[in-house]
Amino acid sequence: MTAIDLNSDLGESFGGYTVGDDAAVLAAVSSANVACGFHGGDPRGIRATCRSAVDAGVVIGAHPGYRDLAGFGRRFIDVEPGELTDEVIYQIGALQALARSVGSEVRYVKPHGGLYNAIAVGETQARAVARAVREVDPDLPLMVLSGSVIERVAGESGLRTVSEAFADRAYRPDGTLVKRGTPGAVLDGDAAVAQAIRLAAEGRVTAVDGTELAISPESICLHGDDPAAVQLARRIREGLEGAGIAIRSFV
Amino acid sequence: MTAIDLNSDLGESFGGYTVGDDAAVLAAVSSANVACGFHGGDPRGIRATCRSAVDAGVVIGAHPGYRDLAGFGRRFIDVEPGELTDEVIYQIGALQALARSVGSEVRYVKPHGGLYNAIAVGETQARAVARAVREVDPDLPLMVLSGSVIERVAGESGLRTVSEAFADRAYRPDGTLVKRGTPGAVLDGDAAVAQAIRLAAEGRVTAVDGTELAISPESICLHGDDPAAVQLARRIREGLEGAGIAIRSFV
Amino acid sequence: MTAIDLNSDLGESFGGYTVGDDAAVLAAVSSANVACGFHGGDPRGIRATCRSAVDAGVVIGAHPGYRDLAGFGRRFIDVEPGELTDEVIYQIGALQALARSVGSEVRYVKPHGGLYNAIAVGETQARAVARAVREVDPDLPLMVLSGSVIERVAGESGLRTVSEAFADRAYRPDGTLVKRGTPGAVLDGDAAVAQAIRLAAEGRVTAVDGTELAISPESICLHGDDPAAVQLARRIREGLEGAGIAIRSFV
Amino acid sequence: MTAIDLNSDLGESFGGYTVGDDAAVLAAVSSANVACGFHGGDPRGIRATCRSAVDAGVVIGAHPGYRDLAGFGRRFIDVEPGELTDEVIYQIGALQALARSVGSEVRYVKPHGGLYNAIAVGETQARAVARAVREVDPDLPLMVLSGSVIERVAGESGLRTVSEAFADRAYRPDGTLVKRGTPGAVLDGDAAVAQAIRLAAEGRVTAVDGTELAISPESICLHGDDPAAVQLARRIREGLEGAGIAIRSFV
Repeated sequence: MTAIDLNSDLGESFGGYTVGDDAAVLAAVSSANVACGFHGGDPRGIRATCRSAVDAGVVIGAHPGYRDLAGFGRRFIDVEPGELTDEVIYQIGALQALARSVGSEVRYVKPHGGLYNAIAVGETQARAVARAVREVDPDLPLMVLSGSVIERVAGESGLRTVSEAFADRAYRPDGTLVKRGTPGAVLDGDAAVAQAIRLAAEGRVTAVDGTELAISPESICLHGDDPAAVQLARRIREGLEGAGIAIRSFV
Repeated sequence: MTAIDLNSDLGESFGGYTVGDDAAVLAAVSSANVACGFHGGDPRGIRATCRSAVDAGVVIGAHPGYRDLAGFGRRFIDVEPGELTDEVIYQIGALQALARSVGSEVRYVKPHGGLYNAIAVGETQARAVARAVREVDPDLPLMVLSGSVIERVAGESGLRTVSEAFADRAYRPDGTLVKRGTPGAVLDGDAAVAQAIRLAAEGRVTAVDGTELAISPESICLHGDDPAAVQLARRIREGLEGAGIAIRSFV
Repeated sequence: MTAIDLNSDLGESFGGYTVGDDAAVLAAVSSANVACGFHGGDPRGIRATCRSAVDAGVVIGAHPGYRDLAGFGRRFIDVEPGELTDEVIYQIGALQALARSVGSEVRYVKPHGGLYNAIAVGETQARAVARAVREVDPDLPLMVLSGSVIERVAGESGLRTVSEAFADRAYRPDGTLVKRGTPGAVLDGDAAVAQAIRLAAEGRVTAVDGTELAISPESICLHGDDPAAVQLARRIREGLEGAGIAIRSFV
Repeated sequence: MTAIDLNSDLGESFGGYTVGDDAAVLAAVSSANVACGFHGGDPRGIRATCRSAVDAGVVIGAHPGYRDLAGFGRRFIDVEPGELTDEVIYQIGALQALARSVGSEVRYVKPHGGLYNAIAVGETQARAVARAVREVDPDLPLMVLSGSVIERVAGESGLRTVSEAFADRAYRPDGTLVKRGTPGAVLDGDAAVAQAIRLAAEGRVTAVDGTELAISPESICLHGDDPAAVQLARRIREGLEGAGIAIRSFV
């Protein structure tokens, strides 16, 4: 039976500030990218999310980001690579202790936002992140954008990579995503469900110009930022299951 | 042969801000209380300190504090106990990963500044800290002020406690320290060396009113904030060694 | 015609984190306590709130708090008074510049959360806050809890104080509020509207034990944290207007 | 009589962390770029620096930076221009209130570190900063790198610009600085004094390849980060005075 992983960002609330509907998202995914406190997340919320993930049978991954709470880790920061390595180690370690305190473990790493984007294209920060993961645990998989610089760099360094794709985003013929803001960049519900099924079942996606792309992701990224995103996440899960595709972590 | 541990706070620099002379202090102590990023310390500096500690043969302990960089963790914050537990777990975990990345381990925990003072007298926060240590690793010793609430609370919860005393501070007849700022609160060099030797060799100290107190610390706390403190740390170490007392970690 | 001011906290969102429904609250109040970036609020959101306040004809006040984003400024921090004075000056000044950039002014000061509570009972921090306001502008009114230490201290120092009361909170016979969490501490909608009207029209409120208290606030504090709070804010405004009481800033 | 301004960064200490020797630097300069709390500086230290500047007869300028304490504001952050404008307004306003509380005023603005570098070459952030200054006070001069994008952009927007040059840095034939780290990038003491005198007296500097450049700065930037820098600052001041050049603020 065909199976695929579904992942989403969780645990990003901070102090009195709540973001995302963690409970609803945990019902849809098999992997939780849990914030580590630098771009979002505080120890109490992170631990509560870990506990909920355990209860929901969802695998916990570390979701480290730039030290930029004001920017929610979304913007590029020109951090020196050595410092970036140490910051990623710090964040993974913090989450490891919280995950263990609820009887679980960090099973993979997926960088967040601006850092995710930076290592998709930039060699220097990509190497810094790969080094951090290796130094924490060389057996920890790194979740990456399919076809990105970090996918290659992490692979060269001996790390297992888990490539992910997007159900609700249009692809360009070169396999990169159509930029947000461009007309047609974001797919509507039916189209997103259909794209998820093709990605999981056939390892194929149709680019905006009609080109057929071969993309075989191990995971599909879902969002939980607002009620519409949560509803779409649920529909994608149901659509996949309805097509006979199991939702299962890659670990 | 009699032996005692010497401990000091390290790794508290932050970004462009340097505090303390870590290299000099590492030459004097056997245990390094390494900052964990909440009251001081950043991942790069923390890791560099861990590496230096390994090179110097000094044992690494976690030095968690209140989330208060602006106050250097010195002032009381009325944190809810559940949140405090999670914050301490987070900090220890972050340091564990950095210590492991240089081939070492966190071997004990000593809370910092305002948190150290709060749990010396307050039951609620003391229980929260003891719970955090237990949840990370019930075998991790907790370094505490001799005779404090946290010493009792941690002991009751099954944690090993390591009591510390002060060479350069005057004691009151009830075993507490004379408050800083009070005349005679801080001992000069010769008196501090003498007090260290008596603490280590005899397990006794003379209070300000002449009372003889029985205090048998496993560790003596030294300071490295300024050149005078570093020099005193060195003198105390030399004085102890000259008196035939070995400087040795308690682990 | 009788008139009263209605105030609420605004501009407390931070980066990607949204809190409160500023637009809805601005339709209900005459005074906006605008966050200054220490317990909540960032420059972009603060300025947007100032602009919305101007559009809604609502007066802008500074809402400084402890430097504690993780705690949303709600918990006590033992800040030295000199430092607290400087922190309050800093926050008011930052808001002044943003308010001026949209053609308005800071017209009063109301401290937030933990700081508000601390200066209601503590002389030292109360004096520090009063000094800050005086040093920024001795003509700036300070909004205070009716009957609090800061009301007396600020008055003694020559500041104009504006006392506020609560529509939705039960009072004890000594004029203090019944603690949240105690049964009956929070009034339901009808009772809150009735209490608002009595406070505004008669300067009286009935304590939990039936005692009649004389409290003549210049302002009533409303909340906008969640949809129910916003709806209550609207009902209280409508109730006051229906009773012939005008909603009008005190400046 | 020929005169020139000397400026340096001040007030950048934070909490328990001290950086720079403000007292010594204030004896050398005529303009103090005072940190505003985002890249460095806290309200207490900022205010103390303002007080010292007043005592030393040194003019106070605002020194806003990126919100990046961990990076000391030295690295580029891709902040959206609207947000950057609001952050700069916030910082200037905070300093204005603290400067006024000691009887002085903010008389100019000089961005810090990574922001200074970004607006020297980038149009978008340059416009954002110019807009911020204009919205706070269109009469506030903006101190800029001679020949930079911000110099042009600020000038076009009607702001007065004050161009600065460097005594201790080698120039390339196109008027930009030789990058730090390149051999010969930093001049030694005698060369720096000589370059300062030529800049002030002749409005000329010799580039690394021997080209004569016409640069007539209104201010020369000095550093106070370490004892050597402070000593050089003093020597440059004495060298200029010995050459009959007065040290005088441009305001």
